[in-house]
Amino acid sequence: VVSKLPQTGTTIFTVMSALANEVGAINLSQGFPDYNCSPELIELVNKAMKDGHNQYAQMAGVMSLRERIAEKTEKLYGAVYNPDTEITITAGGTQAIFTVISAMIHPNDEVIIFEPAFDCYAPAIKLMGGVVKSLALEPPNYRIAWDMVKRLINHKTKMIILNSPHNPTATILHKEDIDELSALVKNQDILILSDEVYEHLIYDGETHHSIARYPELQQRSFIVASFGKPFHATGWKVGYCMAPANLMLEFRKIHQFLVFAVNTPIQYAIAEHLKNEETYLSLPAFFQEKRDYFRKGLEQTRFELLPCYGSYFQSVSYSNITDEKDADFALRLIREFGVASIPVSAFYSKGIDHHVLRFCFAKRQETLDNAVDRLLKV
Amino acid sequence: VVSKLPQTGTTIFTVMSALANEVGAINLSQGFPDYNCSPELIELVNKAMKDGHNQYAQMAGVMSLRERIAEKTEKLYGAVYNPDTEITITAGGTQAIFTVISAMIHPNDEVIIFEPAFDCYAPAIKLMGGVVKSLALEPPNYRIAWDMVKRLINHKTKMIILNSPHNPTATILHKEDIDELSALVKNQDILILSDEVYEHLIYDGETHHSIARYPELQQRSFIVASFGKPFHATGWKVGYCMAPANLMLEFRKIHQFLVFAVNTPIQYAIAEHLKNEETYLSLPAFFQEKRDYFRKGLEQTRFELLPCYGSYFQSVSYSNITDEKDADFALRLIREFGVASIPVSAFYSKGIDHHVLRFCFAKRQETLDNAVDRLLKV
Ligand SMILES: CSCCC(=O)C(=O)O
Ligand SMILES: CSCCC(=O)C(=O)O
Repeated sequence: VVSKLPQTGTTIFTVMSALANEVGAINLSQGFPDYNCSPELIELVNKAMKDGHNQYAQMAGVMSLRERIAEKTEKLYGAVYNPDTEITITAGGTQAIFTVISAMIHPNDEVIIFEPAFDCYAPAIKLMGGVVKSLALEPPNYRIAWDMVKRLINHKTKMIILNSPHNPTATILHKEDIDELSALVKNQDILILSDEVYEHLIYDGETHHSIARYPELQQRSFIVASFGKPFHATGWKVGYCMAPANLMLEFRKIHQFLVFAVNTPIQYAIAEHLKNEETYLSLPAFFQEKRDYFRKGLEQTRFELLPCYGSYFQSVSYSNITDEKDADFALRLIREFGVASIPVSAFYSKGIDHHVLRFCFAKRQETLDNAVDRLLKV
Repeated sequence: VVSKLPQTGTTIFTVMSALANEVGAINLSQGFPDYNCSPELIELVNKAMKDGHNQYAQMAGVMSLRERIAEKTEKLYGAVYNPDTEITITAGGTQAIFTVISAMIHPNDEVIIFEPAFDCYAPAIKLMGGVVKSLALEPPNYRIAWDMVKRLINHKTKMIILNSPHNPTATILHKEDIDELSALVKNQDILILSDEVYEHLIYDGETHHSIARYPELQQRSFIVASFGKPFHATGWKVGYCMAPANLMLEFRKIHQFLVFAVNTPIQYAIAEHLKNEETYLSLPAFFQEKRDYFRKGLEQTRFELLPCYGSYFQSVSYSNITDEKDADFALRLIREFGVASIPVSAFYSKGIDHHVLRFCFAKRQETLDNAVDRLLKV
């Protein structure tokens, strides 16, 4: 068979987690917690199943969940989405992203992405015959140079993909970025896909500049979010997509034939859980404590800390330790020191390697302690 | 925005279920049971969640589930699949089908499908730039004329999509079909996608001719199956795909960026459930009783019964009652008589209408009784 994605290997998350398990390393590579989600949430799923909510959900998702999402979005960002026509529940953020790209990208359409970029964007674009235009950003701040973006835009530019808080770099979009972006796309036929799966994981009192806050951007945007990350249940695979009705109509044309609907009892449970806004308003403090704890530990090592404004990832530079490639060093860190990380070069297409590793700190204190103990030996 | 699927509306299942709910009709349209799945299965999901199985599953699926699937497949069909490289768990049969088509169909590739065809095949093919070559089959037996298939085959033919037991017609592939198909594809570079989500729902002692039984076909085939239908939990959205390693490698390249992984606790629960083979060996008797009961009821109405060899659908012809189009008659049946069905013309691309409706009989006896009472008035 002729491969549709000849250059594509197995995702770095699978590779690193498998290796971590194989050698029994502390797994700070793939982003997921090593503690359980809340017992109340589990009981809500159990109740939904016992109540008989085990058959197909509506294609667009369980209505009460869509309603809770609309309420949350209006409360947090002031944007009004119609749950009937503008919100669709998906099998995780990844499925939402794939579906947006499938629904919007025609052959030869150009899509601008910023690297390091989460690894599912580019393959989906290529699969649809689209062309990836990537702009490489630089540590430590990975700021977007908007004049460079402007140079990438032409009549073929169909979409810009944003991700804030950003995975893997833990940076966020600032108000100036929003202003620059708004000026750039004004009077242009450019769509935005805004990957906001870490919307609730933002620290030091910073504001999440959701695209939903900015009507002139919002009307051309698909916003993707997820419940796996905020509710400590990455394995439940429930997320959602919001977009104006004309865009959502096209999204659902694909969604209905790609997956049809999403796990029903979990949708009912999350709809209940969302009634208590503390479930998400408490998250910044919860994760900031972990971030601060982990950073304090890392400060004693030879690694240099990069900033962390949001997400549950902490990146470090190791240029002062070795000039090995990050992929090689990450392997050595697993095998010799028993700590798994993600080499950030995996998120660049062009072999760019700034000698940066990403660690996930959504872990118990004990796990972070053990990881730091091992990293102290490096 | 320019639609990627300009001809595509909302799937007939969503349309009919929504209308049934709106007017309070008995919903025999979309295929799902109106009784709950087994309490043991629910308890297994609950246990998996409490045991902490709530984070990302492996990209290809929970290993114990893949192992149980391999065992079941070997036992039932004599085929050996390697769980490590040849089986992938998916978010339902639909996601598996979409992923196979995405991974295999290049622009201008031709795919042969048989109509009436489940409605997700053609849009996925078109989305990938492929060309649908459909062969329309005729009631009451919907037999495939293999000499007609032969005429459709040329150097662009990439894939043939099979579905047995067949939705919506409830027919099955017979050994002669397998022989004809084998002769046809011999020495040809043609792939097979075999949609076997109703594999366990087959009646009157008939054999399910899984493609897995026939090595010369199996080696070029993706086989798709599901747990939602057999385990009375269509809303759980867990299915799987099996294929030889070289094909599965390409499938996973897409799967990992389309959904990444599938709901974890449900996978653990089904893996446990499958340890008891009675969970699926008991299904033919269970559903045959429903089929027979429903057919007996329908025999008293003016509808003419079509054969039902498998699946949980019973089709009827109403030519002797009216010459309305099936879509119109189905609407009238909901509004005036309170019974929702699926008009089978929805599964033909070319406006073919044999005046046939499809009813789902995966319902409580009481529901079937009530439906028959109403249909007696027609
Ligand atoms: C989709 S698996 C990877 C989870 C994740 O978001 C990450 O580790 O970056
Ligand atoms: C994917 S929703 C429809 C369920 C089904 O398989 C059917 O009703 O035919």
